[in-house]
Amino acid sequence: MSDTPDSAVRTYIDTHREEFLGDLTEWLRVPSVSAQPEHAADLRRSADWLAAKLGATGFPVTEVWETAGAPAVFAEWPSGDASAPTVLVYGHHDVQPAAREDGWHTEPFEPTLSEDGRRLYARGAADDKGQVFFHTLGLRAHLAATGRTAPAVNLKLLVEGEEESGSPHFRELVEERAARLAADVVIVSDTGMWSEATPTVCTGMRGVADCEIDLYGPDQDIHSGSFGGAVPNPATVAARLVAALHDEDERVTVPGFYDGITELTPAERELIAELPFDEAEWLRTAKSHGTLGEAGYSTLERVWARPTAELNGIGGGYQGPGGKTIIPRHAHLKISFRLVSGQDPHVIEAAVKDWVAERIPAGIRHEIVFGAPTRPCLTPLDHPALQSVTRSMARAFGTKVRYTREGGSGPAADLQDVLDVPVLFLGVSVPSDGWHSPNEKAEVELLLKGAEAAAHLWDDLSAHWTV
Amino acid sequence: MSDTPDSAVRTYIDTHREEFLGDLTEWLRVPSVSAQPEHAADLRRSADWLAAKLGATGFPVTEVWETAGAPAVFAEWPSGDASAPTVLVYGHHDVQPAAREDGWHTEPFEPTLSEDGRRLYARGAADDKGQVFFHTLGLRAHLAATGRTAPAVNLKLLVEGEEESGSPHFRELVEERAARLAADVVIVSDTGMWSEATPTVCTGMRGVADCEIDLYGPDQDIHSGSFGGAVPNPATVAARLVAALHDEDERVTVPGFYDGITELTPAERELIAELPFDEAEWLRTAKSHGTLGEAGYSTLERVWARPTAELNGIGGGYQGPGGKTIIPRHAHLKISFRLVSGQDPHVIEAAVKDWVAERIPAGIRHEIVFGAPTRPCLTPLDHPALQSVTRSMARAFGTKVRYTREGGSGPAADLQDVLDVPVLFLGVSVPSDGWHSPNEKAEVELLLKGAEAAAHLWDDLSAHWTV
Repeated sequence: MSDTPDSAVRTYIDTHREEFLGDLTEWLRVPSVSAQPEHAADLRRSADWLAAKLGATGFPVTEVWETAGAPAVFAEWPSGDASAPTVLVYGHHDVQPAAREDGWHTEPFEPTLSEDGRRLYARGAADDKGQVFFHTLGLRAHLAATGRTAPAVNLKLLVEGEEESGSPHFRELVEERAARLAADVVIVSDTGMWSEATPTVCTGMRGVADCEIDLYGPDQDIHSGSFGGAVPNPATVAARLVAALHDEDERVTVPGFYDGITELTPAERELIAELPFDEAEWLRTAKSHGTLGEAGYSTLERVWARPTAELNGIGGGYQGPGGKTIIPRHAHLKISFRLVSGQDPHVIEAAVKDWVAERIPAGIRHEIVFGAPTRPCLTPLDHPALQSVTRSMARAFGTKVRYTREGGSGPAADLQDVLDVPVLFLGVSVPSDGWHSPNEKAEVELLLKGAEAAAHLWDDLSAHWTV
Repeated sequence: MSDTPDSAVRTYIDTHREEFLGDLTEWLRVPSVSAQPEHAADLRRSADWLAAKLGATGFPVTEVWETAGAPAVFAEWPSGDASAPTVLVYGHHDVQPAAREDGWHTEPFEPTLSEDGRRLYARGAADDKGQVFFHTLGLRAHLAATGRTAPAVNLKLLVEGEEESGSPHFRELVEERAARLAADVVIVSDTGMWSEATPTVCTGMRGVADCEIDLYGPDQDIHSGSFGGAVPNPATVAARLVAALHDEDERVTVPGFYDGITELTPAERELIAELPFDEAEWLRTAKSHGTLGEAGYSTLERVWARPTAELNGIGGGYQGPGGKTIIPRHAHLKISFRLVSGQDPHVIEAAVKDWVAERIPAGIRHEIVFGAPTRPCLTPLDHPALQSVTRSMARAFGTKVRYTREGGSGPAADLQDVLDVPVLFLGVSVPSDGWHSPNEKAEVELLLKGAEAAAHLWDDLSAHWTV
């Protein structure tokens, strides 16, 4: 084996593989389920365990941060080089609920290696403990391979404890601790790749703004024989609002909805088209039986790069068995808008409110309320830090790295907003890992590749990015 | 007082007013609530009471007819004249539920006269015992005034016991007993008039065909971030169906929906326009805050004479508190179509099924099921039997009688269908009588006018109508 930096990193990781898996297994045994109040003590145990392990890894600063909910873990290791960029790594130590009887072949909180040693089955193996924990191995490999006693970047870690519960206290925590969290870039390790054979880097997530609309008609349900055909029906008005939200090209009709959005460049569209996309397979994952979306865009483009208006729930009138000939007094809509870079949730909110108000006929009263939005995030392909992530992944995987995006929305956007920095993604999970499902697993080799990529990343960022 | 037939009828009725009210009060004390199983014995008591009273009135045939639910009462009194028309009077002896604590000022089953003696408060006073029972007085007055020993028409009465529960066994009963019920015309005494000052005759009711539509998308609720914008949403499809049901003129868009319907004649529209309609008052009755309906028609025309498509219920996706960013797996619609003369429910059903099927995008599966329809009924203004009803009402009220229709649908249509005869309406209730509400009452003078009209009707029908 030569002693190039790449082989030195690989050697360190290979040598410490068992130690890494042993530690990760210990952590995975802690059932840190944030959605279940009876696991509150496990969340604390999980946070304490991680803080101690980060201390043992060498972080001179490790802290458990309290929130109104589950605790988060913060760690910091300055580079010693005043000109080095500061990187904040984000992950989470809470996990989804899991019970053997849900269809697990092994105990979800008793991590189990497959017979060939390639897969580690446990709740949290991929989402997200495995992907947080590879950073400890990566960082040690980085130090060992470069001979440094401190990382090449100023490294900070924030590992929250409520991501699987919607991060209800995360933004508040980030706002309170903004000074401690200040960084030049955020690296989120809570996403995946296209596949084992096609390593990818995620470049952005959609945002989301959601609203509830109540529509009130008659003061009570009234007889559709005596009055039907002559007074407005709030459930019909609700349905008409939903139907009017899209035109025949499945484009959202709210005026200004697409104003200023970051359109896909021809180069980006080409990169997406190059991905080995199998629509039948994608439909199986989506548990759906057909595609439908904005004209002029592919399925991946629609999900990753186009904003949407989606009806999440509708209700009005009689929903029990049989018929009931009424005009209902009330109807209700829940609609969420996925947003892409260039859309401001507050502008969208105002536009939707105006659009709805214009469509309410006389005799119907309406109320519309928006929840707290999540902004979209997107890093341009030519951003130097994104280039560093891409190069580091390519070195780890020894192959071309492609780009994806994430259609969902996440707390990463809060870090982007509050800290006002770009958000990048370093994740090595694959679709078969089964996030949120029974028999969640991580591919051991991929976790080690993640560590390898992270080891390269600190070096690459400090060498190629001047902040 | 002269001894014209009219004054003779009036004299008889005035003379027997107390006896009539006493008997009716006795009947109203029986809480024959068909919707409440604990009142099953009361329904039988009510039927037995009525059968006995009809026997005492002189009907040579009185029978209590069993159904799978509450019993009906049948009575028959042949004219003796082979050429006389046969008339079947329809009413019901069951009542809506009522309890003092619902807001009644008196006990609902302890009939109470107002201090001035003009109003009789009790559940069923107007709907429908009072309007069934005025026929006994009318018939006796008819015999007394004409000196006959049998009515001038072959008179049959059918008083069902489940009208307030949707008449679930009525059609079956009519089909089984069709030979016994055979008649030339049906007189329904279960409707009202415009007002005390504006006596009216109802000339028809709308029919109804109702359906339930289920729409299935993904195999389970799926994540609107991961998949939103790229797969069809069954709740959105449901809403689009509802929105597409009407055009911008609020006309139903299902092809053929209006084909062959009996349009209002200019004369009928003029008669409707002459009614003292107060839209603000009507909206108060409708508990609604605006009107909306088919362009080119007035509110009364829309409710009485135009077919509709009405959304009775819609549900899909998440309807609990807060938001949930899903694409739902399923949505459900309940839609009812009010039908007017000339529309065949089975043709409408087929047209709607085709129309829905054409609007289901790939990836959505749908099911549509129609319930048993109720046909519309309408008697032309120049029908000789309708003319008899109008003249009889005019003689009773001493004023011009106008025409209304009924927007709702009722079991009368089953009589029309099965017996294949026109259905006419003789009712004297007024909107303030409060059907189905607390403090239901009947205006005593109007019940007596009903008896008076019925007394004239048998005479007039036999004199002016050759069947």
